[in-house]
Amino acid sequence: MPKNSLLNISKFVAPEVIFGLGALSQVGESAARLGIKKAFLVSDQGVMEAGWVEKALAFLKEVGIGSYVWYGLTTNPKDCEVAEGAGHYLASGCDGIVAVGGGSPIDVAKAIAILATNGGQIKDYEGVNKISSPLPPMVMVSSTGGSGADVSQFSMIVEKQRQVKMAIISKSLIPDIAIVDPSLLQTMSARLTAATGVDALSHAIEAYVSLAATPLTDVHALAAIRLISANLRESVACRTNLEAKSAMAMASLQAGLAFSNAILGATHAMTHQVDGLLDLHHGETNGILLPYVMEFNMISCGEKFVNIAEAMGVQTTGLGKWKAAERGIAAVRRLFRDIGIPERLSQVGMKEEHIQKLSLNALKDACLVTNPRDCSADEIEDLYRRAL
Amino acid sequence: MPKNSLLNISKFVAPEVIFGLGALSQVGESAARLGIKKAFLVSDQGVMEAGWVEKALAFLKEVGIGSYVWYGLTTNPKDCEVAEGAGHYLASGCDGIVAVGGGSPIDVAKAIAILATNGGQIKDYEGVNKISSPLPPMVMVSSTGGSGADVSQFSMIVEKQRQVKMAIISKSLIPDIAIVDPSLLQTMSARLTAATGVDALSHAIEAYVSLAATPLTDVHALAAIRLISANLRESVACRTNLEAKSAMAMASLQAGLAFSNAILGATHAMTHQVDGLLDLHHGETNGILLPYVMEFNMISCGEKFVNIAEAMGVQTTGLGKWKAAERGIAAVRRLFRDIGIPERLSQVGMKEEHIQKLSLNALKDACLVTNPRDCSADEIEDLYRRAL
Ligand SMILES: [Fe+2]
Ligand SMILES: [Fe+2]
Repeated sequence: MPKNSLLNISKFVAPEVIFGLGALSQVGESAARLGIKKAFLVSDQGVMEAGWVEKALAFLKEVGIGSYVWYGLTTNPKDCEVAEGAGHYLASGCDGIVAVGGGSPIDVAKAIAILATNGGQIKDYEGVNKISSPLPPMVMVSSTGGSGADVSQFSMIVEKQRQVKMAIISKSLIPDIAIVDPSLLQTMSARLTAATGVDALSHAIEAYVSLAATPLTDVHALAAIRLISANLRESVACRTNLEAKSAMAMASLQAGLAFSNAILGATHAMTHQVDGLLDLHHGETNGILLPYVMEFNMISCGEKFVNIAEAMGVQTTGLGKWKAAERGIAAVRRLFRDIGIPERLSQVGMKEEHIQKLSLNALKDACLVTNPRDCSADEIEDLYRRAL
Repeated sequence: MPKNSLLNISKFVAPEVIFGLGALSQVGESAARLGIKKAFLVSDQGVMEAGWVEKALAFLKEVGIGSYVWYGLTTNPKDCEVAEGAGHYLASGCDGIVAVGGGSPIDVAKAIAILATNGGQIKDYEGVNKISSPLPPMVMVSSTGGSGADVSQFSMIVEKQRQVKMAIISKSLIPDIAIVDPSLLQTMSARLTAATGVDALSHAIEAYVSLAATPLTDVHALAAIRLISANLRESVACRTNLEAKSAMAMASLQAGLAFSNAILGATHAMTHQVDGLLDLHHGETNGILLPYVMEFNMISCGEKFVNIAEAMGVQTTGLGKWKAAERGIAAVRRLFRDIGIPERLSQVGMKEEHIQKLSLNALKDACLVTNPRDCSADEIEDLYRRAL
């Protein structure tokens, strides 16, 4: 069967999206439209301190919606945190979920929604399409230009005991309404801005070369790569550069639409294992691994890598296909260096002795299925080792 | 305020899309997923004769869904046909709507859905956001590469007495599921293939230069222009060219996503009036008017017209902005000539004496609001006259 062809049956699903500076103001009207009377608002410490939760609560109150705030979660959120949150949800008398934050609060909000109406433990839902009962209405307000969780059918939760990041994938995890307000990006640190931007670029590039890519996901993936290549540096450099923040929020949104429907690849399959083990920022780990995975994947779809190079701003006229593809990977490396992403896994605490176990787990990750080049355990070990 | 900027608040809504050769087979499972027990199937004579309705009924029956078939509609469907269809719906005991066909059956299916749960006459809903009660679940199967009605928030119905085409615009008109099966395009005549392809190109170009365009709609609009410019001729030339049919179906889908969210412009505002008066194929009228409207609109956003030229396959390097923009318009004219679209309104029955009334009505059309260049009644008259 042709790969990424117009001749296969494919599906594309997206939430309603409200995008723009000041879009947070739509959270009340959005929740009301979904019939929410009392909102369970999930966030995290940093977003609380930045004042965005307070603003969201005021917008909810304006339209007569009550709320219960919960933010008992950490980066790379854990199964036990989800269970605790679900307990709060059920006791709170809420009838809908609003998240304000980055990937972690949104992933947890989705996981709480699952347990609220489907019961059991979150690990029961690992994998594809394990959710049977409809979820409560969900409005997600994204405060980072990165995760894409606000539009995706993914929730990523760490199972503490096994030290693995589980992928829960289901169309019912797509929120009803995603609100993307670039002004919220102004309160992120430069380091978090860099890491979330790298995550978004990893989504766009992995979705673009994915075996499940379609023309509908390709246009969003390429647009995201172009926006990130042109704006991530400025966004990291200056907290109040609203043009750059808006471009990065749009890039993250488009990368999210792309990967939610085209899924990801080996970079994420490998990063998820490191996330489970070392509790680093997912975006930084992606940034270390992505260039090595691109080098490995390049031979599977050279033309697509040329398009990536062009979207990264490389002048490809006169270059041969493989030279152009390599220049694209070099442009990705250069971007990551410019914004201070670490270059080696050993810098962030990973050791040779971790590699074998992580490789075996990566081989089982749902994201590996759509990687454009077949991967053996040995090849994954080799990729980890190159990046060590 | 900057036009088409990342700095405004914008919304983007799309149905779940199932795309691909053989996607019609998903109609039963899709209707079942929406809880439909008995489907009101709207179609038209041509699609019935091509055998697609029979196939759809079999797929519905396979999953235990009963049905009632109704196809009492004509091209440029009329308010009286909608009223009749709604009577059938209410008497049939159906609890959901499935349409199989081009823009006409889908527009009528949406209008029947409105009357089924909101009552009254269809003209009560003309304009933006006039629908208050939720509509029955809707699955739309598109059989033409053109209208975009299967993904849009529009329904276009002719009010017979006033001889105008009314635009009914509401988010609740977006179907729950859109099924796009390019194999259905094989049974269209060459003339209908040409007309629907021209309609799709008009959607893409008008959405791209619309005042309500956003980066999310732009990527789909440009992708549609590229696909149409590269595939419409082959699609008209050969009924069984499945690559070309698939490309045109994808183009129509992307143009639909673009214009549903970015709205249209003066071409459609003017075409709707001709549709109401002369009962021509909407796509042919668009084809006559579009190049003149492009010439008129060009000065409002020259860069965008250069991008259109490039998407039309024009080599723009070394050309100045305005020369490049003009070459794009020439490429549109050339494409339309190659596929046999008439060049003048007088060829299709329009007369000088119609112009004044049509211009006044066009000025009130909802699509004119987003045209990138301000239009007076005189300017619209002048455009009709140039195309006469
Ligand atoms: Fe990620
Ligand atoms: Fe149209």
